[in-house]
Amino acid sequence: MRLRKKPGVREAMATYPKLVPLNGEEYRGRWREFFGNDNPIHVELGTGKGNFITTLAEQNPHINYFGVELYEEVLIKAVKKAEAKELTNIAFLWINIRDIENYFAPEEVDRIYLNFSDPWPKKRHAKRRLTHSEFLAKYKKILNSNGFIQLKTDNEGLFEFSLNEFAQELFLLKDITFDLHNSEYVEGNVMTEYEAKFVSQGMKIYRCIAAHPAQLAAKFTE
Amino acid sequence: MRLRKKPGVREAMATYPKLVPLNGEEYRGRWREFFGNDNPIHVELGTGKGNFITTLAEQNPHINYFGVELYEEVLIKAVKKAEAKELTNIAFLWINIRDIENYFAPEEVDRIYLNFSDPWPKKRHAKRRLTHSEFLAKYKKILNSNGFIQLKTDNEGLFEFSLNEFAQELFLLKDITFDLHNSEYVEGNVMTEYEAKFVSQGMKIYRCIAAHPAQLAAKFTE
Ligand SMILES: C[S@@+](CC[C@H](N)C(=O)[O-])C[C@H]1O[C@@H](n2cnc3c(N)ncnc32)[C@H](O)[C@@H]1O
Ligand SMILES: C[S@@+](CC[C@H](N)C(=O)[O-])C[C@H]1O[C@@H](n2cnc3c(N)ncnc32)[C@H](O)[C@@H]1O
Repeated sequence: MRLRKKPGVREAMATYPKLVPLNGEEYRGRWREFFGNDNPIHVELGTGKGNFITTLAEQNPHINYFGVELYEEVLIKAVKKAEAKELTNIAFLWINIRDIENYFAPEEVDRIYLNFSDPWPKKRHAKRRLTHSEFLAKYKKILNSNGFIQLKTDNEGLFEFSLNEFAQELFLLKDITFDLHNSEYVEGNVMTEYEAKFVSQGMKIYRCIAAHPAQLAAKFTE
Repeated sequence: MRLRKKPGVREAMATYPKLVPLNGEEYRGRWREFFGNDNPIHVELGTGKGNFITTLAEQNPHINYFGVELYEEVLIKAVKKAEAKELTNIAFLWINIRDIENYFAPEEVDRIYLNFSDPWPKKRHAKRRLTHSEFLAKYKKILNSNGFIQLKTDNEGLFEFSLNEFAQELFLLKDITFDLHNSEYVEGNVMTEYEAKFVSQGMKIYRCIAAHPAQLAAKFTE
């Protein structure tokens, strides 16, 4: 028998069936069965090493959290954090965010976090940005009409782009700050791995809330 | 007879009846009579020395322009620029912007420019910022439902504040840029006196468009 230096990634993920459902599509529209409760669902897209989402899960046992991440090298670190904390209100989806609609039914999600998403600064890569209107159209569907997206980034170009895309897609913008850590919104802020690094370098963090378009529509019929 | 070093300001203004109507309130709702035509009306609030608005007036003879300015020392320079260019499609209102509704009837204005408005950085002075919601409520009334506000500023804090206020007051944000002079929107940009100074110092200029809320409302009934 040959020794493999690195065990297969899928096998590694499969050892955490409670934390990494590899058959996530089957739970679409019925995640309450997976968690055994009807708690709200908050999703971080592009979770990376998972400090943010595992800390929130620890702080808020009555919310069910998801970390969505494509790259196994970082995802496994997030999973191990959740395991070490013995969390039962979190799951990780090892998928491409492009396919998010296959994992959540319309209005199944109550909140979406986008933290330090890859900026893709070249114009020809704009469609890959996680706030491109094509992504926003998907988020709009899975998000409850009372829900919102919270975005944090160090990248000015991505922030500028995102504000324009949110406005164009008729999200209701609020609580925009160009310097989160010197703003009123810093209270209760949980840092991500990227954020901790940027903040220690003295960089500014941009942040905003984009509420579901239904909340904007409601303003005109009030 | 005594020689006065500096002639009375009101008298000075009164020597330009075609450019500085001191009875502007009487024209409210019927500026077409003042200009002798029915052309669109574009208004700059806080005109300062007037390079922006007099240049636009020169470039666009089929638009009627207004420069609104409280301080006579700078306003007189703007007036003299208009006189030197022999402009007939511009007028200056020597008033406080707080009273703008006394000078324009509902929907009489087609576009509003806010250029390098005083930032009033202290929180207790927020109400003085020209994009405070109390000012926006006035602009919303005088602005035609197809119209928009264009804002330029070097001041990050004022820009951040303004985005939040516009969104809250249900203006439709677009063409947001954090660096006008390195953006696609620089084409056709006319610089103000403040802008020329800041740009020569290598500072970035923030800029956005905020379209009348009626245009946002229409998106939901399309
Ligand atoms: C710059 S990192 C930020 C990680 C973490 N949110 C933080 O702030 O520390 C962006 C993460 O998003 C993930 N990501 C980017 N595009 C993705 C996609 N389409 N589907 C799933 N994950 C994606 C990357 O693999 C990466 O881990
Ligand atoms: C910082 S300067 C900018 C001038 C010019 N827009 C430029 O960019 O060069 C702001 C101007 O707004 C005028 N202003 C501020 N508040 C005003 C108000 N409430 N009513 C009328 N003018 C006002 C000031 O007098 C000043 O000339």
